[in-house]
Amino acid sequence: MKSTATRTVIVRKVSKTHSEVVDDRLVAEEPLEIRICYEKLGQRVERAVSVTMRTPGEDSDLAVGFLYSEGIISSLTDVKEINADHDAEGKPISGDVIRVELHPGVRVDTGKLERHFFVSSSCGVCGKAALESVFVVTEPLADQTRPVVSASWIHTLPGRIRSEQKLFSSTGGLHAAGLFEAGGPLLGVWEDIGRHNAVDKLIGSCFQRGSLPLWNRVMAVSGRGGFEIIQKALVARIPVIVAVGAPSSLAVELANSFGLTLIGFARNGRFNIYSAPQRVVDIPSSSVGQEGSANPV
Amino acid sequence: MKSTATRTVIVRKVSKTHSEVVDDRLVAEEPLEIRICYEKLGQRVERAVSVTMRTPGEDSDLAVGFLYSEGIISSLTDVKEINADHDAEGKPISGDVIRVELHPGVRVDTGKLERHFFVSSSCGVCGKAALESVFVVTEPLADQTRPVVSASWIHTLPGRIRSEQKLFSSTGGLHAAGLFEAGGPLLGVWEDIGRHNAVDKLIGSCFQRGSLPLWNRVMAVSGRGGFEIIQKALVARIPVIVAVGAPSSLAVELANSFGLTLIGFARNGRFNIYSAPQRVVDIPSSSVGQEGSANPV
Repeated sequence: MKSTATRTVIVRKVSKTHSEVVDDRLVAEEPLEIRICYEKLGQRVERAVSVTMRTPGEDSDLAVGFLYSEGIISSLTDVKEINADHDAEGKPISGDVIRVELHPGVRVDTGKLERHFFVSSSCGVCGKAALESVFVVTEPLADQTRPVVSASWIHTLPGRIRSEQKLFSSTGGLHAAGLFEAGGPLLGVWEDIGRHNAVDKLIGSCFQRGSLPLWNRVMAVSGRGGFEIIQKALVARIPVIVAVGAPSSLAVELANSFGLTLIGFARNGRFNIYSAPQRVVDIPSSSVGQEGSANPV
Repeated sequence: MKSTATRTVIVRKVSKTHSEVVDDRLVAEEPLEIRICYEKLGQRVERAVSVTMRTPGEDSDLAVGFLYSEGIISSLTDVKEINADHDAEGKPISGDVIRVELHPGVRVDTGKLERHFFVSSSCGVCGKAALESVFVVTEPLADQTRPVVSASWIHTLPGRIRSEQKLFSSTGGLHAAGLFEAGGPLLGVWEDIGRHNAVDKLIGSCFQRGSLPLWNRVMAVSGRGGFEIIQKALVARIPVIVAVGAPSSLAVELANSFGLTLIGFARNGRFNIYSAPQRVVDIPSSSVGQEGSANPV
């Protein structure tokens, strides 16, 4: 590890009545270049596929999670070596670079490398093209009825990931993604300054432990539920996502199209179900005569 | 405008004691492809330079704000036309595309087009390379002592942008960037699902009105203060940034290197000054003997 996840700086804290100069811990933000190395027509190819601003730590999870959720690698047997220390000739690497070397014979679809830019020269981009791009790397969830989780269990998730957020409590600047057994315990929390990076770290960690796909898991995220988060979850086959913040319109469209249960605004004893509600059970019954009305709960 | 900034969906709201099915407004998220059209060696060139997930609205501000803060255009006289309806041959465009056509004679530095990926084939990327990349498009602020703003004025900013956030109040899913006259009134608030897009819209709007550089302005942002936000503010020459959330380590380094005043955690009557504190005046005096100590305020 070349970097640490936090930095200490000197800061002046100001309130309405006092001020003082103190040490303060900040979340570290550093660029990471992800490179893949593979063979093409008998030639070795090494190319950068992404530069992301991330919080240092779990860089190899981040790298393989990104490559997996972009559809570039699909199994642990694709990966020969991951290293951040030396290049193909054994020379030391300077800067924050991580190299994922693939086994000979693994085919890399360079079209997918461009995919997440959605660029289509003929017709421009639109929400429909973005949705279709996800069909290129994955398909709708096969079992749209399981797992089932209870409403009361869902209420507990935000508090459980927050209590495990080690870096957040010291810096206040991090997103978290927590993985739960459906209806069961918290399996782990991953943190990063970037919401999508936290999800890549979660998926990459499961990838490296050989525990994908995540059929019977629920992912909770600390912030909003945007398109990219749902896309990554779908590739890892996570059937239920619980976001503390608001979902976006395109996230809801994507979740509906693929049969993923998307829950938003999960906080303070409330949540909203935006898609595939059949996976949530033991919901308090509707107020009498209120179904479909806008009356307050 | 092909899209609107919000969408209405049907949602099941669940509390611990009740549930109901109601209409809910979501913030729209749609990809936008930004294209530039220019002449190179007598040939017309049209190329996509970015695809960003954004909240529809103020797309032309977003496009020119992005191009300006990336250093690709520098003045209103560079721009011949902005359109989202037809291509160079007059054919209708489908999808969310915005074309920025430059006047003949405007030179486009294609190196800068790649710049925000920070890719350096020789040494990889690191925080130092990221900082240096900002020196390519702008320089440290010339006047590192002005404007000055009072602590009591800074305390008012978060509440003032929140009260102007029209979309946030209906969807709960948006970032905002507010522009203030230093020590004075709020000049405008721009909203987007992406923090950096809100800042691009603010800068692009000022660009189109010919009001750049923003020497005597203060920008307040609703979320965290990351590297990209500071970089964009520097290109527009905004000397003071107030973030409601946490800054990142690299944001503080960049602000220090360029003499920008960065304030974070501005909420609930408190804020922290991370760099160039000389622009903040009328700060309550330090607790006696507390300078540099970690004692509570």
